[in-house]
Amino acid sequence: MEDLEQVYLSPLPDSPYVKPFRLNYTQNGKKKTWDLLEVHDSVAIIVFNVTRRVLVFVKQFRPAIYYNCVHPNDRDEDFIDTKKYPASLGIALEICAGIIDKDKPVNEIAREEVLEECGYNVELKDLHKIMSYRAGVGVQGALQTLYYCEVTDDMKTAQGGGVDDEIIEVVEKTIPQIEEMLNSPGPLASPPSCLFALMWFMHHKADKYRK
Amino acid sequence: MEDLEQVYLSPLPDSPYVKPFRLNYTQNGKKKTWDLLEVHDSVAIIVFNVTRRVLVFVKQFRPAIYYNCVHPNDRDEDFIDTKKYPASLGIALEICAGIIDKDKPVNEIAREEVLEECGYNVELKDLHKIMSYRAGVGVQGALQTLYYCEVTDDMKTAQGGGVDDEIIEVVEKTIPQIEEMLNSPGPLASPPSCLFALMWFMHHKADKYRK
Repeated sequence: MEDLEQVYLSPLPDSPYVKPFRLNYTQNGKKKTWDLLEVHDSVAIIVFNVTRRVLVFVKQFRPAIYYNCVHPNDRDEDFIDTKKYPASLGIALEICAGIIDKDKPVNEIAREEVLEECGYNVELKDLHKIMSYRAGVGVQGALQTLYYCEVTDDMKTAQGGGVDDEIIEVVEKTIPQIEEMLNSPGPLASPPSCLFALMWFMHHKADKYRK
Repeated sequence: MEDLEQVYLSPLPDSPYVKPFRLNYTQNGKKKTWDLLEVHDSVAIIVFNVTRRVLVFVKQFRPAIYYNCVHPNDRDEDFIDTKKYPASLGIALEICAGIIDKDKPVNEIAREEVLEECGYNVELKDLHKIMSYRAGVGVQGALQTLYYCEVTDDMKTAQGGGVDDEIIEVVEKTIPQIEEMLNSPGPLASPPSCLFALMWFMHHKADKYRK
C-alpha cells in the first residue's frame, strides 16, 4: 500500500468523479452564487466483532489527505518529493463505507460494502440504522446513512480488502485502543464521520463489551 | 433567511472557492489518478453557555444541502421550483466554524469565529483543543481543529450572525434537546463534524451540567 512514486498535479479534465458547477440564487432579495460539486449519497457502517470484541476498520491511501500534508511551497514542483512526503502520510483509518451508485435499497448497499471491504457476510436484519445526515455543508451536501452491525468470526467468509483497483487493509482495534485514539489530540488521518461513529459506539455500546 | 427565489445552475467559471485538479501517482507500480479540490483548513468550536446550560448553534442556508434535496429530475429545469423545494430544506444546524484564510494562530481564528458568529468575546485560554482530524477523505482532505469553549451570558458582547454577506442565526439548545437530536433517525441537516462534537459533549461534559 505504501509504495508511492511519480506524484504530480494536472488540470482537471472532464471528470466522472468531480463535477463542479455554480448554483445561482436570490436570498432575501440579494443575488448570490455558491460553487458546488455533484456527489453521490453514501453509507457507512460500524462493524463490531463480538467474538473478539474488536471494531473493524479499513485503511487505505487517500490522495486528498496526502496532498494536504504537502506544504504549499512543495506542491508546485514537477513531482512531489516522496522521500520528504512518504505515502504513509496519506493512509487514512476509516470505518467501512461506500457510495450509493446502484439502484438498490440503501441497506443492501451497506451489506455489500461490509462484505467487499471487511469480508463479513451479514444479513439485512443485522444492520441497524443509526441516523442519516449531510456528509458536508460546504461544497458537498450529499446524504450519508450510518449503520451499526455486530458480527462474529464465523460470519467472515471472505478476505475483504475491496474490489477492482481498491487497495484496502482491514484492521481491528480493541475498545481501549479506540478510547486512546479518541483521547489523542491528533492530527488524526480520519474523517469526522468515523469519529462520530466511534463516539456513538463508546457512548452507547462499549460498556456492554468492556468486561 | 428563508426567502429564496430564482435558483438555477450554471457552469463553473474560474472560481476562487472551488479549485478542482487531478493528482497523478503510481501506487505499488500501478498508475492511478484521483480528482481533488484545493480547500482551506478550518476550525470548529463547541460553545456551551454555562449560565443557561445551553449549547450555541448557528443556522444558515447551505446551497450544497439545498441542491441535494432537489430530485435529480427537477435539477434540469431552467429554474428550480422554490414552491416545491422551499429554502427551509437547505437550512443547516451546525456548531460555530470557519476556514483558516488568514496568517494567524489557529486558536486566534477560533476566537474570532466565536465572536463573529455567536457574539461571545472569549479569551484564548477559554478555548480547549479537543482534536484535529481530516475534514474529508474523498475530494477534500484539509485539517479541521475542534475546540471546546464554555461561555457565560456576560461574555456576550455582540449579536453574532456573521460578517459581510453572511446570514447566520444563532440558536440555543438544551442538553435534552441535543439528546433528542442525536437519537433521531434523521435525515439531519447537520454535518458529521457537528455530530461528532455533540457526541463528544454528551459523553464528556453533559452529566456535569444536567442537574
